[in-house]
Parts: sequence; C-alpha cells; structure tokens
Amino acid sequence: MTLKVPVVRDILEANERLANDNRRVFRDAGLFVINLMSGPGAGKTSLLERTIDALRHEIRIGVIEGDIQSSYDAERIAKKGVQAVQLNTGGACHLDGNMIKSSLDALDLEALDLLVVENVGNLVCPAEFNVGEDMKAMILSVPEGDDKPLKYPLMFQQSRVLLINKIDLLPYVDCDVGTIRERALQLNANLEIFEISCRTGEGLEAWVNWLKQQVSDRKTEGDGAKT
Amino acid sequence: MTLKVPVVRDILEANERLANDNRRVFRDAGLFVINLMSGPGAGKTSLLERTIDALRHEIRIGVIEGDIQSSYDAERIAKKGVQAVQLNTGGACHLDGNMIKSSLDALDLEALDLLVVENVGNLVCPAEFNVGEDMKAMILSVPEGDDKPLKYPLMFQQSRVLLINKIDLLPYVDCDVGTIRERALQLNANLEIFEISCRTGEGLEAWVNWLKQQVSDRKTEGDGAKT
Repeated sequence: MTLKVPVVRDILEANERLANDNRRVFRDAGLFVINLMSGPGAGKTSLLERTIDALRHEIRIGVIEGDIQSSYDAERIAKKGVQAVQLNTGGACHLDGNMIKSSLDALDLEALDLLVVENVGNLVCPAEFNVGEDMKAMILSVPEGDDKPLKYPLMFQQSRVLLINKIDLLPYVDCDVGTIRERALQLNANLEIFEISCRTGEGLEAWVNWLKQQVSDRKTEGDGAKT
Repeated sequence: MTLKVPVVRDILEANERLANDNRRVFRDAGLFVINLMSGPGAGKTSLLERTIDALRHEIRIGVIEGDIQSSYDAERIAKKGVQAVQLNTGGACHLDGNMIKSSLDALDLEALDLLVVENVGNLVCPAEFNVGEDMKAMILSVPEGDDKPLKYPLMFQQSRVLLINKIDLLPYVDCDVGTIRERALQLNANLEIFEISCRTGEGLEAWVNWLKQQVSDRKTEGDGAKT
C-alpha cells in the first residue's frame, strides 16, 4: 500500500496543475465557470435548459457536456442556440482537467460570460477532480432518497450549491427534504440550497437570480483587476 | 499512453483472478450469487427488502452491502432477519473481487442459498469489475429517464437482468418504458426485463418467480456435480 499512495497523489497533483491552467484561461476571458455534478438522471441537462431559457438575454452561456458516450445532451443544449460541446470520456466515470483543456478550442470563450461543465452522471468520482471551475454545484433529485448525504458525503462537502430537484414528485416518493437539508448542512454548513422542479419550473427563479449575481460579481472583480 | 495500457490490464486481470477465487468458494457452497448494480437511489435496497419478504421461507438469502461509507443499508437489511454485511469502500466507486473476498469470513455461506452483492450506487464503474457472481442484475428507475442506455451502455451489456423500477411514477415523469426496452435490448438482446415498483409491489411476483427458478437451477446443477 505504501507504494500506491504516491501514485494516487501524482494523478491528483497532475490534474490540479491542468485545472489551474484552465482556471487562468477562464479568468483571462472573464468567465464564471460551474462544474455541475449529480447521479444519472437527476436533471443536470434539464436544469441547464431551464437556466438558459431564463438567462439567455442577459448572460452569454456555454456548455461542455461530459458523457461516457453519445452526443444526446449536447444536441439538447445546442437546440437552445447556445455554444455547446460534447466531450466523450470513452469509459471514464468523471471529467478531469485535461479533458476540459482539450475541449476549450471548440468554444469561443471571449463570447461567453458563464461556462457550465456538465460532468458525467455519477455521485462519486467527479467530486475528486477539479477542472478549473469557480464552483461546484450538485443536484440531488428527491426520488433518489434523503439518505444520499450519508452515503456520498464528498460531493456534498465539495459543492457550493445543492439543487434539490424534482420536488413535484414529493407526494409520490419516500423522501423528506428537511432530512436532506439537515444531513447536507451537517457535511457542509456553507451549502447554498435551492428546492426546484425543472418539470414545473417551481423554485427556479431563486436559483437563476442567485446565479446571475455570481456571474455579475465575477465581472465586477474582473473589471477591478484590470484597472 | 502505451505505458499505461498494460497497467490497466494488470488491474483487471488481478481482479479477475480474485473474482475466480470467490466463484470457486461460492460454487463449493452451492450458492447462487447476484451482483446488483444501479445509479444512486434507483432502489437496490428496496428491491432486496421486497425480495427477502417474498422468499425468506423458501430461500436462505444473504446480502453484502457496498457503500463508500455508512452502514445504513446493511442495517435496513439486517432488520429483515437475514445475514447482512456492510462493506465500506472508503472512497472507491465500485466493489471488486478483493473487497468481496475480504468480507466472506463475516458470512456463514453454508447457511445460504442466494447471496446478493449490492454494489456502490454508480451506473459506470461497477460494470467493469467482476466479483465472482453468477450474474449481474441492474436497476434503472424511471425518474432517471429513458436515455440512460445510450449514455451508460456497458452496464446494460454486462447485465443478465434489467429491473425497471418505480413504474408507479410513470404518470409524473418524462420517461417511456418502451424506449428503455428498445434501447436496452439493442445493447443486449438477451436481457431479461422486469417492470416493477418496489413501492406498490407491482410486477415483483414475476421477478421473484424468475429468481427462484435460477436459484433452484443452481441447486440442481450442484447436486448433479456431486453425484
């Protein structure tokens, strides 16, 4: 085991260097970048569709879609008329700094205010790898159950935002949002939590307004740095 | 890259040797073993609870619960009065042959007919690692959406059984079971498919009867081998 630890550290350190390269590129372009994570089918792409619909006239949004294979999600996003790139990991269960670096040429970063990296659907490994983001955001959908913070703590610890999605299904599933909140805040007291339904639109206004503020704050910071 | 490929192969080959060791132990004990996989919150533990309730008087069932941390699921299963072991991976996103090998001492295998290994909730990596099972079974819950076979093909290809769970939610989600079936069978024409609801109990009888037959076939094979 003593032989293996340095190897793992090397992988994470090498990733961190590439993530930092990306971060510099994003800063230079004045971009706010979100690494969006969740288990499969929790609603990452639906959230992006809703967010684009709400903000397209105020914020220039681009999306990098990460999937093991298929270009299904990037096609959904491209239909919204924003810049979208599909990244296929070919088996890997998470995105990393190098994958994001290799996809940046496909985007016109100067023409964007907000870049969202939609990670591979997986509640485990994506949380271990930075890609150069300003913040990680995660979605937990209520059909997944309120025990998830107990079982997948790292993602809750690493995220700035928790979106509790599919609240329209609450009458039909055994899940208590109060329990999710309590368990998530125990892992990460600074977590910003939004209860939403991408299907009905409920709760999305609060999320969209908060996000708009983050992007605007980044712009102000960037302008400040230039003077 | 040429340097890395043999390393990956070594890991999978080393795992395969340990999985085969486990397989011999399971065969000697006359056990039928299922590796149960799904994304987070698709209903693996609920399916086990339902299956134990239905079969406890006919089949002696044991469960190995795999989670990154917590013993929540093993406690749920132990309440049903069957042998249950919790295995914590401490970060790893899947179970492997060695983890299962190390947990076998905690079970009385001779007192079991069926052992279910509940893998870590993850639609990606668990499908890459055999643990010595007779078959892999997967659950996809309808709130996850009918696009999942396109995006996570390996698990559908590796599984003998697909359980489509939470069909009671079909009126409230955008998911077409016919589309799941079609896409899954395109990846794996031999897939046995059951539509179930662990909440209402719908469809579980067909699954339970099929499972009972598999366990009984293994017993007959085992008795044949002994004579």
